[in-house]
Order: sequence, then structure tokens, then C-alpha cells
Amino acid sequence: MKSDGMAQAAARLARRLDQLGRVSDEPGRLTRTFLSPGMRRANALVGGWMREAGLSVRIDAVGNLIGRLEAGRRGAKTLLLGSHLDTVRDAGRFDGALGVLLPIAALVALRERGVALPFAVEIVGFSEEEGVRFASAYLGSKGYIGRLRAGDLGLRDARGISVRQALGGAVPAAPAHRPGELLGYFEAHIEQGPVLEAGGCAVGAVSAIAGQTRSKITFHGRAGHAGTTPMALRRDAFAGAAEFALAAEALARAHPPLVATIGTIAVRPGAANVIPAEALLSLDVRHPRDAGRRAALRTLRALAARIARRRGLRLAWQTTQDNGAVACSPGLTALLARSVRARQGRCPELASGAGHDAVILSALAPIAMLFVRCRGGLSHHPNERVERKDLEMALRVTVDFLERLVPFA
Amino acid sequence: MKSDGMAQAAARLARRLDQLGRVSDEPGRLTRTFLSPGMRRANALVGGWMREAGLSVRIDAVGNLIGRLEAGRRGAKTLLLGSHLDTVRDAGRFDGALGVLLPIAALVALRERGVALPFAVEIVGFSEEEGVRFASAYLGSKGYIGRLRAGDLGLRDARGISVRQALGGAVPAAPAHRPGELLGYFEAHIEQGPVLEAGGCAVGAVSAIAGQTRSKITFHGRAGHAGTTPMALRRDAFAGAAEFALAAEALARAHPPLVATIGTIAVRPGAANVIPAEALLSLDVRHPRDAGRRAALRTLRALAARIARRRGLRLAWQTTQDNGAVACSPGLTALLARSVRARQGRCPELASGAGHDAVILSALAPIAMLFVRCRGGLSHHPNERVERKDLEMALRVTVDFLERLVPFA
Repeated sequence: MKSDGMAQAAARLARRLDQLGRVSDEPGRLTRTFLSPGMRRANALVGGWMREAGLSVRIDAVGNLIGRLEAGRRGAKTLLLGSHLDTVRDAGRFDGALGVLLPIAALVALRERGVALPFAVEIVGFSEEEGVRFASAYLGSKGYIGRLRAGDLGLRDARGISVRQALGGAVPAAPAHRPGELLGYFEAHIEQGPVLEAGGCAVGAVSAIAGQTRSKITFHGRAGHAGTTPMALRRDAFAGAAEFALAAEALARAHPPLVATIGTIAVRPGAANVIPAEALLSLDVRHPRDAGRRAALRTLRALAARIARRRGLRLAWQTTQDNGAVACSPGLTALLARSVRARQGRCPELASGAGHDAVILSALAPIAMLFVRCRGGLSHHPNERVERKDLEMALRVTVDFLERLVPFA
Repeated sequence: MKSDGMAQAAARLARRLDQLGRVSDEPGRLTRTFLSPGMRRANALVGGWMREAGLSVRIDAVGNLIGRLEAGRRGAKTLLLGSHLDTVRDAGRFDGALGVLLPIAALVALRERGVALPFAVEIVGFSEEEGVRFASAYLGSKGYIGRLRAGDLGLRDARGISVRQALGGAVPAAPAHRPGELLGYFEAHIEQGPVLEAGGCAVGAVSAIAGQTRSKITFHGRAGHAGTTPMALRRDAFAGAAEFALAAEALARAHPPLVATIGTIAVRPGAANVIPAEALLSLDVRHPRDAGRRAALRTLRALAARIARRRGLRLAWQTTQDNGAVACSPGLTALLARSVRARQGRCPELASGAGHDAVILSALAPIAMLFVRCRGGLSHHPNERVERKDLEMALRVTVDFLERLVPFA
């Protein structure tokens, strides 16, 4: 390992992630929600680190923490970096926070090396990404790009307070930047999945953020006595649902990177001695390409219809959510991949199955994302963990990436 | 149709089933539970019809209604006939009641025809078969054969009253009859299934009452993010459960009269975007032969273990109930089948997938059961229905059967 101060910088990054992880709305566990006291304390803590790194710090009308380092020249473009500072309930300390503290550490490392970037840098700690308080995600990044709509502002939390009320009436209508001003948006995030771990890599470049379709599917059959109804005379709704679940699994297995998940299932009447009359299941389908997701859904609907027909069941299919895929910028991602290869030897390219602030920022700027290995793929859990060595690798790659951007300023 | 009064007798039987169906513990729906006011009124009503038919009537220590017609000679054997007068909640009016009122109608028909049976007849309306009040079935028939054990007597209802307390301390220790005194036990019951309807027959003879094994099966896998976990790295507990459900269905379909039912399924954590870590399902397996049921369970356990192994899941299997099959008496059933063929042309033989009082009575006497078609196989529901013509057929067959028993008295 080179003795270039990066190991020490990674150690400090790890300590800061620990320290930030203790800033919570709840005693004994990590929970920070939109505009909460914990979020205000987190903004103060991280804002202090930003100032130490030479950034000028402000908090915008939706609670986003913004640290800015101007370039030495007028009219320079701006590179955005960041992620979110809010968390799920009983969260881990890396999801979101890593993407805010890592670029601060990278700027410090560049300063210590005497590198002055020819572009402005803006690090954003978004105030809301997890959707905990208002059951709707991305309020921070939507506010940042001036796209909080009436529908968002009218959402109410558990106490009946609307987003508009929580913001105190000050709703930003304009984006923080004009698109032409921006070099891009870079977000580092834990992978929240097991691919890097399985491949033995600390980091990887994200190719796209998968589109996602959620459906509620019901098979309606006929209840019957478990003892007195011969198999040949049954119309078992759960058997239809089980057949569909296996068909969906087989389809996704045969077409990576497609993923299909049945996460909930309920049967009625739900007694051990009664054949299920009804089976209701959730289906979550994701694919980094919209065409791949749509083709999968067409096939799955046809499969479900065929299963229902053959079994004498009635099928009801309701699409509850349908979000298109977001491609990462090929140019920025190629540059990031070069940094990863330079530091790690090889660069896995992954699609992100989960959504990130980058989805919203893609409306304003080309995006690039760096994924960092997390133990067991675990996230949204207090045991969420990134190894110190992996933090160091992520830091080295981020510094390298910033330097590689210099010619494009 | 012969003008032998049977159509009128069947019409009266239907009216009495309607009338008895209005005797309930609850307004607006039919519910009669062990030792309830409704049961006392039902016993009074049916006891009156028994007396009209020439029977001497008593109620035993566990609330069973017993009507007895002595034979003309001393030392004659006794034929038992009956079923239960209690019901499930919001019941239909045929389940149980039919098996008590039908033999009363048959004795009246024989008397009107001037036939005096050479054996005694005892018609029993059992006080408890459905297991509603004490969540345990057969309290009436167990009391009748002197087999209420300490475990039964200690059961408590929702208000904390024990069976012993409900009985007022008077617990019969001896069976109502010595085995050698009995010709057999005959029970007519609605099929509670769709086989007779599918075969176009009003009645059929029961070959055996299926044994039943209930299990709770849990597949333990690993939770994961629905978007970030590739299919190849999943250990999806529900997918394992679905595969098992289809394997169980396929096994039962391939081995009639085996039936296997998964009536309940629950997954944890149970969120649309989380791969299930745990799937808990019920399995109800029935077969008229114990060897068939046991072989099926061995195969199913091996299948579940294989599925779990291949998918990297852990399997837990708990047997919660295991009751052996009860064969009907070949001799009595052959006689009954002759009656059915004489009246209906052909005699379907069915296994009963549900339990009946005959299961308990089989400890005391050879048993025979007649199944009567019910619309759509529906039972335990207010829409439970037996057509008038089918009541008439059941009555004709019962009368014929009683006459065929004469040489065996």
C-alpha cells in the first residue's frame, strides 16, 4: 500500500461515518427522517466537515445540505456529488451517508496533494430519499432540481402535516442549476446487494438504474373442503399462484439481469383444511433496460393468464407502480470505469436494482455512480457494514475520477 | 315414481330439516353448540318426532338425544343409526341433522308398511361433533361410547368453563352398549364434496373415512433486496414453498384418492421489495388407507428436503395432527351397496375425506355410511342444500337397507 495518506483518510472517513451514525431521532437506533431534529444535527455536523474541507455551506429551502467549492475561474462548470443524509428506521450508517462524506474526504485529499480542480464542486447531502416520513421518496433531490409538484407538497405525514407545511411555505420552484452549467452528478453508494462481494471486488461502476414495475396479482378459484374435494375437481387459487411464482423465477433466471420477486402472498380463507379460494401476491419486476422489463411483463402476464385458464381460475392484475430505467452517462461512466481499473485492476459494471438520488438528478445532468461492496449485501439494517479497505478503495477511485475530469472542465 | 308414500315422506323430511334449521343459538343464522339452549330446543323438537315414530326417548349424561325402538323379542341385537345435532357457526341445515331425521323417517315408513324389525333400533342425535365450543370434536360420540378422557374433560370453552363443569359432574364411564349387542352403526351424511354431483348420483356408499395428517412446514432462506439481489444469488423461501406446493399437488393428482392441501401460507418479512426469508405453510394430507397416507408423507418430506437442499434453504417440519383411517365394515357396506344399486341402479363407493361420528362409533361396532349429494359440494355454509329428490332416494335406500338387515338380526 502506498503511504500517500489515503489509509489515514479512509480511517477518518470510517470514524466520521460512525459519528454521523450516532446522530438519530431515536435513542438506541439510527433513524433520521425528513426535516427532523436528527437531520438538523446531521446537517450541522456534516456542514462543519464541509467547511473544514474549504467548502462554503448552505441549507436550501427543502433542507438539503449544500457545500460548494468554487473553481479559480469565472464561468467554470460545476460537478455535483452527493447522496442523502436521511435514513430508514433502524438503519445502517453507510446507506446515503457514504455518498456525502466520501467526496468531502476526496476534496481534502486533493487539497493535501495541492491539486486545484478547474471546475466548481458542489457536494449535496439530500434531505429525503428513503420515503419514511411521507411514504414518498426523493423529496430532497426533487426540491433541489425544482420539481416538487403539487402532489408531492400535499402529501401528509403520520401526524397530518403536509410537505408544504413542513417546509414552512418556502418551496423552491427553480432548479439549483441550469443543465448547461453542470459537468455531471456523481454518487457513491453501497451496493445493497451481493454482486461485488460475490465477485471479490471493493467497488464497481453502475451502468443504469433499473426500471421497476410493481403489480398486485390475484388468482380467484373456489374454496373447498381439504378432505372431500378430489384433486381433479379443485380450483386451487394458491396452486395457481405457486405455479406463477415459479414461472416468474424461471423467466428471470433465464434472462439476467432481469429480477422478479414475489415478496408478499396471502390466501383466503386461509384455513389448513380449506382449499384456497383466493391468492393475492405482489410482483416486483426490475430491469436496467425498459424494453427488457416490458418484455418480461408481457411474458409474465401471458403466463399468468395461461395458468389461470388451465386451472379454471380467474386472474386480476393491477399495476401499482411503473418507473422507467435511468441509464448512467456512457461518457462519465467510461471515465469512472477507467479510474476503477486503474486502482482495482478490473471494473465490474452493475445495474442498480434500487433507486437513488441519481434517478432524479438525471433530469438535470449526466450521472455516474460508484457502488461500494457491503457485507453480505445487507442494507437497511444496523449491521450494514463496509470494510475500511473498501472505503479506502472508494476514496482512491473518487480522487482518481475527479482528476480524470480535469480535461473536461 | 311409485306412489308408495315415499315422495310425501321425503317432503316431510325436508320440512323437518327446515324447521330444525331454524333452531339456533343465534338470531338470523344457524349455530348450535354443545349443551347450548339451541341444542336443548333441538333435542326437544327431534325427541318429539322420535316419540311420534314410536321410539322411547332419553337424553344421556353428555346431552346425546337417544330414541330407542325395542325389538319384539328379548336378547335381540341393536342397530345404531344417527349423526350429530350440533352445527358449526352459520351452518347449513343438512350437515348432521340429515343423519338423525332420515332414520326416523325410515322407521315411520316401515311402520306404515307394517314391517316390524327383528332387531332393536337406537337413533342417536349426538350432542357434539363439530368441535366449535371446546375446539375439540366428537365429545358427544366419545361420551356415548364411554371414552371421554381426562384430557377431553379438562378442555375449556371461551368463557373458561371446562367440559367437566359443563356436564355438571355426571360423566359416563361405560359405553352405552357392549359390542356384542350391536348389529352395527349406520350414518347418513351429506357428502360435503363434489364427487356424487360430478358422477350424477344422489347417494353413494362410503368405503372408509380417510386418515389425516396435518403438518406445519417452514422453509428458511435469506431476505434480500428485490432490486439488488440477482436471481442466482437468492435463497428465496417462498420460491421453495411454491415448488413444494406444486410437488404436493402433482403427487396427489398422480395417486388418487390421495388429497394434499396447502390451505395457509405466510411469508416473512412480507414486503413487496424484499425477498422472503421465511415461508410457513400448512399441509393437510388424507388417504382412505393409512399405508397410502404414510407413503405420501414420506415422499413429500423427501421432496421438501430435496427442494430445500437444492435452493440452500433450511427446512423445518412439524406434524401437528395424525389420525389413522377408519375402514367401513365390508359386510355392512356390501349390504348397503346392494340397497343403493337396487334403488339407484349403480352405487358409487367413496372414501370420506372428512371425519364423522362413525369414526368414534367404529370402536364399538361395525360401521356403514351413506353419502348424500349436496349442491356444489358445499357445506358448513347457510347455502348447503340437498334436493328433495335426493332426500327421497336416501330414504328409499335407508328403508331398503333396514329390510336387508333382517336376516342378520
